[in-house]
Amino acid sequence: MGRYSKEQMKGFFSPRNVAVVGASENNQWFRNIIKNAAEAGFEGALYPVNPRGGEVCGIRACRGVEELPEGVIDLAVIIVKSSLVLETIEKLRKKGVTNVLLVTSGFAEMGDEGVAAQVELKRYCLEQGIVLMGPNCLGFVHPTEKGSIFGGSAFEAKPFPGSVGIIAQSGATSEVIATKILRKSLGISLYVTTGNEALVGAEDCMEYLVHDGHTRVITGFIEEFRDIEKLKTVAREAAGKKIPIIILKIGRSEKGKKAASSHTGALAGNTRIADGLFRQFGIIQVETIEELVETAAIFSRCNIPEGKGVGICTASGGISGLYADLCDTCGIDVPPLQEKTRKTLAALLPQFAQPDNPLDVTGSGFLRGLNRILQVMVDDDHFDLIVTLSIPPHGDDDSFASAVNDSFMPLLKTAKKPIVPFTFRELTDYGREYYLSRECYFVEHPSIGFKALAHLIGYGEFLRKRKFQSETGLME
Amino acid sequence: MGRYSKEQMKGFFSPRNVAVVGASENNQWFRNIIKNAAEAGFEGALYPVNPRGGEVCGIRACRGVEELPEGVIDLAVIIVKSSLVLETIEKLRKKGVTNVLLVTSGFAEMGDEGVAAQVELKRYCLEQGIVLMGPNCLGFVHPTEKGSIFGGSAFEAKPFPGSVGIIAQSGATSEVIATKILRKSLGISLYVTTGNEALVGAEDCMEYLVHDGHTRVITGFIEEFRDIEKLKTVAREAAGKKIPIIILKIGRSEKGKKAASSHTGALAGNTRIADGLFRQFGIIQVETIEELVETAAIFSRCNIPEGKGVGICTASGGISGLYADLCDTCGIDVPPLQEKTRKTLAALLPQFAQPDNPLDVTGSGFLRGLNRILQVMVDDDHFDLIVTLSIPPHGDDDSFASAVNDSFMPLLKTAKKPIVPFTFRELTDYGREYYLSRECYFVEHPSIGFKALAHLIGYGEFLRKRKFQSETGLME
Repeated sequence: MGRYSKEQMKGFFSPRNVAVVGASENNQWFRNIIKNAAEAGFEGALYPVNPRGGEVCGIRACRGVEELPEGVIDLAVIIVKSSLVLETIEKLRKKGVTNVLLVTSGFAEMGDEGVAAQVELKRYCLEQGIVLMGPNCLGFVHPTEKGSIFGGSAFEAKPFPGSVGIIAQSGATSEVIATKILRKSLGISLYVTTGNEALVGAEDCMEYLVHDGHTRVITGFIEEFRDIEKLKTVAREAAGKKIPIIILKIGRSEKGKKAASSHTGALAGNTRIADGLFRQFGIIQVETIEELVETAAIFSRCNIPEGKGVGICTASGGISGLYADLCDTCGIDVPPLQEKTRKTLAALLPQFAQPDNPLDVTGSGFLRGLNRILQVMVDDDHFDLIVTLSIPPHGDDDSFASAVNDSFMPLLKTAKKPIVPFTFRELTDYGREYYLSRECYFVEHPSIGFKALAHLIGYGEFLRKRKFQSETGLME
Repeated sequence: MGRYSKEQMKGFFSPRNVAVVGASENNQWFRNIIKNAAEAGFEGALYPVNPRGGEVCGIRACRGVEELPEGVIDLAVIIVKSSLVLETIEKLRKKGVTNVLLVTSGFAEMGDEGVAAQVELKRYCLEQGIVLMGPNCLGFVHPTEKGSIFGGSAFEAKPFPGSVGIIAQSGATSEVIATKILRKSLGISLYVTTGNEALVGAEDCMEYLVHDGHTRVITGFIEEFRDIEKLKTVAREAAGKKIPIIILKIGRSEKGKKAASSHTGALAGNTRIADGLFRQFGIIQVETIEELVETAAIFSRCNIPEGKGVGICTASGGISGLYADLCDTCGIDVPPLQEKTRKTLAALLPQFAQPDNPLDVTGSGFLRGLNRILQVMVDDDHFDLIVTLSIPPHGDDDSFASAVNDSFMPLLKTAKKPIVPFTFRELTDYGREYYLSRECYFVEHPSIGFKALAHLIGYGEFLRKRKFQSETGLME
């Protein structure tokens, strides 16, 4: 089971001395690697290899792999053209290098000839015990270990260490995803692009993340899982540690499958079989980048609720009706108020208000201090998570937003159940920063936010079911 | 059929002299009416009525309805408490006022007693030929006629005259919707909140919009249609003028229905019957505010495509696969490239590219000028609408965004088929303004944008089917 152990992957993802074969001033990938390593605080050394020798981007270069120091290189990055890849790996093997990150493309994604070349590569690396990542990938950013070796250039946020792991078989796309996750979640543990996966697979990276001691949420942008048995094992281990695995699997449609195949050579497989497998092992499946980002964010910032009841506070009957409909669509349970809650709220709210769930707190309830109303909702045993409307401020002097938010924002940190603010009004850059700087999960688009909520609640249900099965001996 | 004619509604929505009964310095609604009227450039006069007389907010007040000038008042707004409403209307009737906007709440939304009071109101107004809007509503903003009489305060964008009509049975919620529509669409013709609809219904307002000479798109945030026959007639007239009607109907779920009932007294009715009716009459149904706003925006800014084929340009295999899947989910047709297109693209793109639809233009295609590639896609007879990736700029000096966008942005105005940019990267306030200032529809979230696209295409199909039925005598 499993091609590479988590110890091998740890070694791969934490190199000190890294050779880059095919490095040149004009090579965009190499320039990106230098820049990304510096930004990540990489403390190791880069060894460019270029037949002309001299200096490349200010670093002394070796003329060939033969000139690399013996027994020192922890990882070699290969960016030479595809016809030279195999012989480069052979030379590296002779120098004792067993970790290879192959950026070069032109293999299984390029038709029969490419497939054959990839088979040959794979055979050699397996024989020689080489850990091969790629071909057709960009490498990894590993903020928790300052070990970033990454050839991409589309990151728009500084990767800071945190709890979200990101595994992608796609390059450019996943940089955008990773940026969006960084903007909404609590930092990343590892971001890795695995490309064609001749050998190292998403499953190997996932196993590493389950055990790295930092990751609390695993996300994947996946065209194909190639090692289903390992996936099952890793999913079981993740569930044991209450680490959710969130997967956006492309190639669900025939057209999508075809695109995936010409992209990383993936055979996207049978969608229904994958769906069943994911359900059984508690793997959360999402359908869009937005849903992936929201779901990662809510898991990284909110506790998993202890039951499935959701209490909702809005300041309008229209929104109450709309949210009730959305919860119905997403399979979210919106139970009635407990009788004592109804009475307490009736005393707190204006006479014309009719306390119910969803609760229209009315304009005056909204402005007179949501904290008391929210506390009453938190104290209701029917609810395990509370949704509240919140007004995203437009600036420091936004008195309307302050009137609404100031009373309840502190409660988000202290309440014994998760409280999720749904923004109601235009959200600007300032408003986004307002919530993020308070380390607070917030929903901009209810149609996406309720899906994320449903995943959070559903994962709690999965864990409870699993615990019950384990305690009663029903677990496989 | 139909309670009020479009001529009556035109009179109602275009008053010159407006009495406000119950106006006082402390009344938030009255202060909002003054502020909103000024902002909209209202050129008529306000006549506050307050038992204390004197001045209210700097305007000379009448002590009672009796003191209002004879035969001058075009519209009376009522904000007195509910128990005084009927006698106020009777007094107004005696002064010849037949247009009444009833802001006061506490009627059908408040249980049996409120229902009875509303029935009484309705009977009297019907008898007396009074056009009654409300109770429990906020009025209207009518930028195309500078006739805004609106008691709300949550607008966050200056309403400017344009082509989108907005009808809402909800108050506060719809201000947020209207703001979002104003931010993405080409201005509004009329925004009206109809509240409990004792008499004037969404159908009456819709009929006015179909014939006002400004409206090109009608949107509705609706709990219940109360006059199905008029709805059918108006939908037929709208289709004849190619004006789409986009409806977000709340109360689809049991919970949502209950919330709607305590909100505006609506009986949300049978969801399946409504769905069938909407389909038959080409009414576009959306499920979320986000989808409503996106759909209104795409109709206000893009031409209806002449067929259903969509060509997609991305710069990544991952996104190609993902978009293909999303199109499949939304029922969007992504036909293959014509053979001549494939050949032309193969010559334009790097050797390793494999032209297909979705088309991965590859990194170099992306940076070398998308205009030629997009023109080839536009020229392909298989396609009626083109989707392209675009990079939202972060500032004036964003060279990466410029490299991608500059070549093709002018094509959006001149191409003979709609081209829709999908933003790929973080979208900031600056980026939003970049597209809006170019009067260009853009998609931020593909999961929502593809739904809007599907509605645009679906409406084109509906119109063509309707034309065929009409030409062959198959139309009812």
